Amino acid sequence: MVEDNAEIFFERLRAALNTQRIDDAVGILLSLHPVDRADVFNLMTDTEQTLLLPLLDVPTTADLLEELEDEDVLTAIGSLTPERLADVLDEMEPDEAADLLGDLPPEQASAALAEMEDAEDVIPLLGYPDQTAGGLMTTSYVALRRHTTSEQAIQFLRQVSPETQIPNYLYVIDRDKRLIGVVGFRELVISDPLVTMDGIMDPDVRYISVGMDQEDVARMMTRYDLAAVPVVDEQHHLVGVITHDDILDVVEEEATEDIYRLANVIDTDLDPQSPVTEQLKGRLPWIYLNMLTALFASWVISNFEGLIAQVAILAAFQSIVAGLGGNTASQNVAMIVRALALGKIDPKNIWRITIRQVAVGILQGIAVGVVIGFGIAWWQSNIFLGVILALAMVGNMVVAGVIGTLVPLGLRAIGLDPALASSVLVTAVTDSAGFFIFLSLASSLITYLQ
Amino acid sequence: MVEDNAEIFFERLRAALNTQRIDDAVGILLSLHPVDRADVFNLMTDTEQTLLLPLLDVPTTADLLEELEDEDVLTAIGSLTPERLADVLDEMEPDEAADLLGDLPPEQASAALAEMEDAEDVIPLLGYPDQTAGGLMTTSYVALRRHTTSEQAIQFLRQVSPETQIPNYLYVIDRDKRLIGVVGFRELVISDPLVTMDGIMDPDVRYISVGMDQEDVARMMTRYDLAAVPVVDEQHHLVGVITHDDILDVVEEEATEDIYRLANVIDTDLDPQSPVTEQLKGRLPWIYLNMLTALFASWVISNFEGLIAQVAILAAFQSIVAGLGGNTASQNVAMIVRALALGKIDPKNIWRITIRQVAVGILQGIAVGVVIGFGIAWWQSNIFLGVILALAMVGNMVVAGVIGTLVPLGLRAIGLDPALASSVLVTAVTDSAGFFIFLSLASSLITYLQ
Repeated sequence: MVEDNAEIFFERLRAALNTQRIDDAVGILLSLHPVDRADVFNLMTDTEQTLLLPLLDVPTTADLLEELEDEDVLTAIGSLTPERLADVLDEMEPDEAADLLGDLPPEQASAALAEMEDAEDVIPLLGYPDQTAGGLMTTSYVALRRHTTSEQAIQFLRQVSPETQIPNYLYVIDRDKRLIGVVGFRELVISDPLVTMDGIMDPDVRYISVGMDQEDVARMMTRYDLAAVPVVDEQHHLVGVITHDDILDVVEEEATEDIYRLANVIDTDLDPQSPVTEQLKGRLPWIYLNMLTALFASWVISNFEGLIAQVAILAAFQSIVAGLGGNTASQNVAMIVRALALGKIDPKNIWRITIRQVAVGILQGIAVGVVIGFGIAWWQSNIFLGVILALAMVGNMVVAGVIGTLVPLGLRAIGLDPALASSVLVTAVTDSAGFFIFLSLASSLITYLQ
Repeated sequence: MVEDNAEIFFERLRAALNTQRIDDAVGILLSLHPVDRADVFNLMTDTEQTLLLPLLDVPTTADLLEELEDEDVLTAIGSLTPERLADVLDEMEPDEAADLLGDLPPEQASAALAEMEDAEDVIPLLGYPDQTAGGLMTTSYVALRRHTTSEQAIQFLRQVSPETQIPNYLYVIDRDKRLIGVVGFRELVISDPLVTMDGIMDPDVRYISVGMDQEDVARMMTRYDLAAVPVVDEQHHLVGVITHDDILDVVEEEATEDIYRLANVIDTDLDPQSPVTEQLKGRLPWIYLNMLTALFASWVISNFEGLIAQVAILAAFQSIVAGLGGNTASQNVAMIVRALALGKIDPKNIWRITIRQVAVGILQGIAVGVVIGFGIAWWQSNIFLGVILALAMVGNMVVAGVIGTLVPLGLRAIGLDPALASSVLVTAVTDSAGFFIFLSLASSLITYLQ
């Protein structure tokens, strides 16, 4: 496991620090892959981080900061002077540097920008919201004119440092910087030296606009298997490139967000080892909301207090109706949320989808209702109790079909995340409805139950 | 929306078919991107598919089959002769061809293999399980020896058709075909023509072994931002390459699987528009299981029938304790499942993680218990009822902390998917425990409640 490695190296590093072998500690850090180095760095205390960070060279510091989580970066760079920070930012990928600058306090950010050499690569990126194509893209790409020959292109590539991480594609632009085509490095390698870019470019290049939401960007790149996609502004000027690695992060982030929201965890940065106070902050609000919805369901039941005093066994069965309805609704919500995320359904088909889910609910209700109705009738030697339970089950499954479909689709329609239709909100309805339907039916058939 | 486009083109295509303009129909299909073409094809009836498929050229048919869902592929190729099928398989990526052959009935698969020209690319892939590195990798890559010069490499690339989709890397192997390095096309482009591969290769190449689970492959490629990764067998021979686009599919598949399992949907191919019978098959089994767990909870309550007959209002509050405990447990399960999927926690720290979740449970129980205890004491004018509810809440939240953590981690420890610790299993425990703790406490304090 990756985590184990980090801990082993961390123990060695701490042993070195404890015996004042600072150079050894730095040596251990340098021997690691940047991703693993960030893991080890994360395990250190703030004091240890502040001690070691200024001892790393600029490229290593840049690599490290690119891999750390946002909040750790802010702590870590506290130990760097503005000049050093500017050098590190110059070394970073422009999109990462822009993200970091966006997280800094404004004065610190402008101080660092003033010291930077390559500020012009980063400044255009600062204006784009994090969750859009503009926030994901990098400005480090190569754009060529259509009459450039293959030989000239290769010479140009030799000039720009081979160190810079550029996408595996060259983009072709017209005199107004408008995107007109794409050339893969593969095509460039095997082309005749004298052929021009417009002879080997693919003019049918897929692009996205700078304001597109990152979830839509991810969906498009996944759908068409794109390793990199150019980003254009409203006038079709090439302004950046998004690469596949940024998209993998987005896909994982979005999946975490959906899973957490469906399970009523607000803070998507939480993990089971997060500090207890953080966990309470990110979990309690939904539990309090759940308390309110549970109180409402209690109030529904309390209206049947007289009935329950007469036929106490009803209290044992009311939760079956509520619980199974809740689970059916959760199935619906999960399927709708995922289908929307993967672009598998069109939200405009809201009624067609709802009717189908109601049909599933009715059949699921009958399938479960018949079995449990017979079971309870036999256990309690009362056929009416079984019938009431079966009918209530079908009724609540219909409620589950409607609510579990309309709530997430409705949230999407008004521009909110469908995953907010989490179990608390949807099962609030199926709980209350389940208790109400079951106890009302029992109430009207009370003479057969005593 | 992508789906809208598919429907628009489908309407045009159907109009063409209805007026016998078969050529126009083919023309509409050919004008689309392969991904969109597959969408339109999916909307057609089996008859329409069987009519049009033989009219498409071999490369187009290959593209189309690569994009269709597994079951649709099998229907579609029913209209192809074995010879035609072999031509189409020759045209497909070797990994896709192997997947397709694996889904065919054995006789049909061997008939097609016998007719294929490039069977030797595909046969080695047939033995690997779908969900492993071997099942994901392609054999279409370029491997070179260490003494090959840059110029020779480029000449070789010009010979192999530029049409073949090979990764953006060249792999360097020794005389025994063992992997020793990697060269990017970027490095190749800008290198001196006379430099040899071992002069420009990165010898520190990351690789994976052929039996690695696809989820681990995805985790590694995401972690290290790899666009392509070579696959080796036990003797370190290069046997294939996995590219980023295969990984995006895996990441999305795994996220869907987690979300569906957490919501008790078994069949991960379901979406809200799947046929009703499919939905019942993929959803009812868990609902039946839920029925059994709900019956058990009912039995727990039924043991307190006498108590409830005396103090009927207890029936209104028992569900609050059960429900809030269930939600807390679901939060735990979601966080553990996601942390395991992203490699954020080490399952060996099982006790440390459980203790932390129990701490969160106790604090969450106190935070909610105090509020709801006061609320109920005031509503029902009975301080003892409030105290009982608050104590039961804390108790059940502890149960939620233990069960919601140990069940997913335990499932992982015995090699099962932690997401099987879905709400049905975990809330079965918090429901029964919630009812039992609350009603037992009420039972022992009955004199104060009447």
